[in-house]
Amino acid sequence: MHILIIGAGGMVGRKLAGTLGRSGSLDGHRITRMTLADIATPPVPPGVVAPVEALAVDISESGGAQALAAYRADVIFHLAAIVSGEAERNFELGYRVNLDGTRGLLEAIRREGMRETYVPRFVFSSSIAVYGSPFPDPIPDDYVLAPLTSYGVQKAISELLLADYSRRGFVDGIGIRLPTIVIRPGAPNAAASGFFSGILREPLAGQRAVLPVEETVKHWLASPRSAVRFLIHAATLDTSSLGVRRTLTMPGLAATVADQIDALRRVAGPEAAELIDRRRDEVIEGIVAGWPKSFTPERATQLGFTAETSVDELIEVYLAEDAPGASRGD
Amino acid sequence: MHILIIGAGGMVGRKLAGTLGRSGSLDGHRITRMTLADIATPPVPPGVVAPVEALAVDISESGGAQALAAYRADVIFHLAAIVSGEAERNFELGYRVNLDGTRGLLEAIRREGMRETYVPRFVFSSSIAVYGSPFPDPIPDDYVLAPLTSYGVQKAISELLLADYSRRGFVDGIGIRLPTIVIRPGAPNAAASGFFSGILREPLAGQRAVLPVEETVKHWLASPRSAVRFLIHAATLDTSSLGVRRTLTMPGLAATVADQIDALRRVAGPEAAELIDRRRDEVIEGIVAGWPKSFTPERATQLGFTAETSVDELIEVYLAEDAPGASRGD
Ligand SMILES: NC(=O)c1ccc[n+]([C@@H]2O[C@H](COP(=O)([O-])OP(=O)(O)OC[C@H]3O[C@@H](n4cnc5c(N)ncnc54)[C@H](O)[C@@H]3O)[C@@H](O)[C@H]2O)c1
Ligand SMILES: NC(=O)c1ccc[n+]([C@@H]2O[C@H](COP(=O)([O-])OP(=O)(O)OC[C@H]3O[C@@H](n4cnc5c(N)ncnc54)[C@H](O)[C@@H]3O)[C@@H](O)[C@H]2O)c1
Repeated sequence: MHILIIGAGGMVGRKLAGTLGRSGSLDGHRITRMTLADIATPPVPPGVVAPVEALAVDISESGGAQALAAYRADVIFHLAAIVSGEAERNFELGYRVNLDGTRGLLEAIRREGMRETYVPRFVFSSSIAVYGSPFPDPIPDDYVLAPLTSYGVQKAISELLLADYSRRGFVDGIGIRLPTIVIRPGAPNAAASGFFSGILREPLAGQRAVLPVEETVKHWLASPRSAVRFLIHAATLDTSSLGVRRTLTMPGLAATVADQIDALRRVAGPEAAELIDRRRDEVIEGIVAGWPKSFTPERATQLGFTAETSVDELIEVYLAEDAPGASRGD
Repeated sequence: MHILIIGAGGMVGRKLAGTLGRSGSLDGHRITRMTLADIATPPVPPGVVAPVEALAVDISESGGAQALAAYRADVIFHLAAIVSGEAERNFELGYRVNLDGTRGLLEAIRREGMRETYVPRFVFSSSIAVYGSPFPDPIPDDYVLAPLTSYGVQKAISELLLADYSRRGFVDGIGIRLPTIVIRPGAPNAAASGFFSGILREPLAGQRAVLPVEETVKHWLASPRSAVRFLIHAATLDTSSLGVRRTLTMPGLAATVADQIDALRRVAGPEAAELIDRRRDEVIEGIVAGWPKSFTPERATQLGFTAETSVDELIEVYLAEDAPGASRGD
């Protein structure tokens, strides 16, 4: 089985490549070849047993998608994206990568299939950013997608394309709407959602963190480990029951900031919680107010997707897998 | 006020051009210029008082959209489309016109605005084909778009683009999801929905018509006159309350085929209803089964959109405006 990961240099992509590469198999099939692609050559994770090749490809450039489709991989994970804040700042770049890049991949696969039958499993990482307020809490599976950012629009459009290309038999597509990933490893970043990870990650390392919103703010979270499990489950499940609704909201944990701080106290002691500086930021508060708080992800749950159920677990996953020095940090 | 109608040679476009051109004003503003564009030079409707120019432009060809944006019209009606059946048969053509064509127009307007401020009202004709079964009956305004055709996908994507370009301030966009238009004037066409008009139009002209589905089939209908009224209302209403949900499901009439036949009997006598040949067609039955039956178009209703409430009215509109020889047939 040949696996292609596009966006393999990113946070989720590295972890997926490490998990698959070390296990050497997917759903009982031996991985005979693994191709890791990103805009710059992505790292090959340590301990990988499958034969790996890493390459630099820009999916938004002419020829990039065709080159990737020509590999005729059995399973393609498409994780490459310009993230939310950047897509909002740079309108053209966001559309070029998140819309044209995804469409280019689907179209290149269709054309590859015109040459000789080719219908790969195509796993697309969408986002709960496809939802925008006003909405009910929780949001049901059949609620309208009304994104409040260009990134969310680009993901929602990609979902529609994935559905149509799948209905027409050009790919065997499945999209998964990832919750916000907490605790995101690495340095703090400028994303508006960054504090959801920061208020745990920094205090766990004995450092101060800023909380820009009120403690009552509730959001939908899952760990990086869950993200990887979702992707692997999506790559292997029977898609025949999906119909045209090819993208599923993933399960997650609806936690308030107060829930997060309570868990931090339980795991790392009250002094850790005191490292959080409350400094309200109206811009961030405004953005976060438009974000989903919770879901009833019935379809995904019925199909066997599962996630963490407490912030304590999110912290445990981080300490075990993703914190600096953790045994399996990719 | 300068008005641009793209797709002005089509069924709805001609009627809109005639209505606006004869009235000479829109919302109290005198129409100082009217530009009618279509892939072939569209006809100038009779009786038009506003200065009119008709031109051939292919919106899917490079330069086509730019040429239209360069007119800097105050109000743009974008009606050009490859219809459902054709977009299903010709995958590439549908995407080129219905997706790339619409995106090209929005993008050309954005670029025109980079040269010098330009934020026209942009009225986009979407379709209830953005909905696909399973769905509740009636379908509420916040129900997920899950199209079952490439045409529906292209319309749903265009709605998302319209929302994002409007949110970013590049256009003042509004989309309206038209019901199936009944009675569509002219010759029978090959559309799967054709019989909804045919079983009325042909018997009213003393000709036989084929009914390919059961009489219990229910669908969402409005007249060509309502379509034109929706467009004009959309061109003039205050869009500030729309938020990112820029496209509205239009009001219509939920009528069964039996309702249609009853109305035909009332208006044209029992002998008219006997001109309908019942010949079930499983392919058409399958397609129609995935179509919406009715809606609760609350947002549009609150904004003042109204439509017919009986099939009798649909027939009266046809006889008054659209039938061969009617006084205002465009
Ligand atoms: N992390 C989250 O909380 C979260 C939540 C929802 C959805 N997602 C989605 O999951 C996916 C992975 O997320 P992540 O957190 O790993 O993001 P990331 O930013 O860490 O990784 C994205 C990768 O895509 C690559 N990329 C960007 N443009 C490219 C191009 N033109 N060609 C090739 N590669 C390109 C980047 O170099 C980067 O390595 C993304 O699609 C993201 O939108 C993430
Ligand atoms: N009639 C209906 O029942 C109905 C229902 C829902 C939505 N709509 C939508 O309303 C709009 C008008 O519908 P209609 O019934 O008048 O359709 P129509 O087919 O009669 O008119 C569409 C027009 O678009 C033009 N066109 C196609 N490709 C073009 C291109 N590349 N460049 C320029 N022009 C091009 C065609 O030449 C045609 O004149 C369409 O967008 C349609 O999708 C119609």
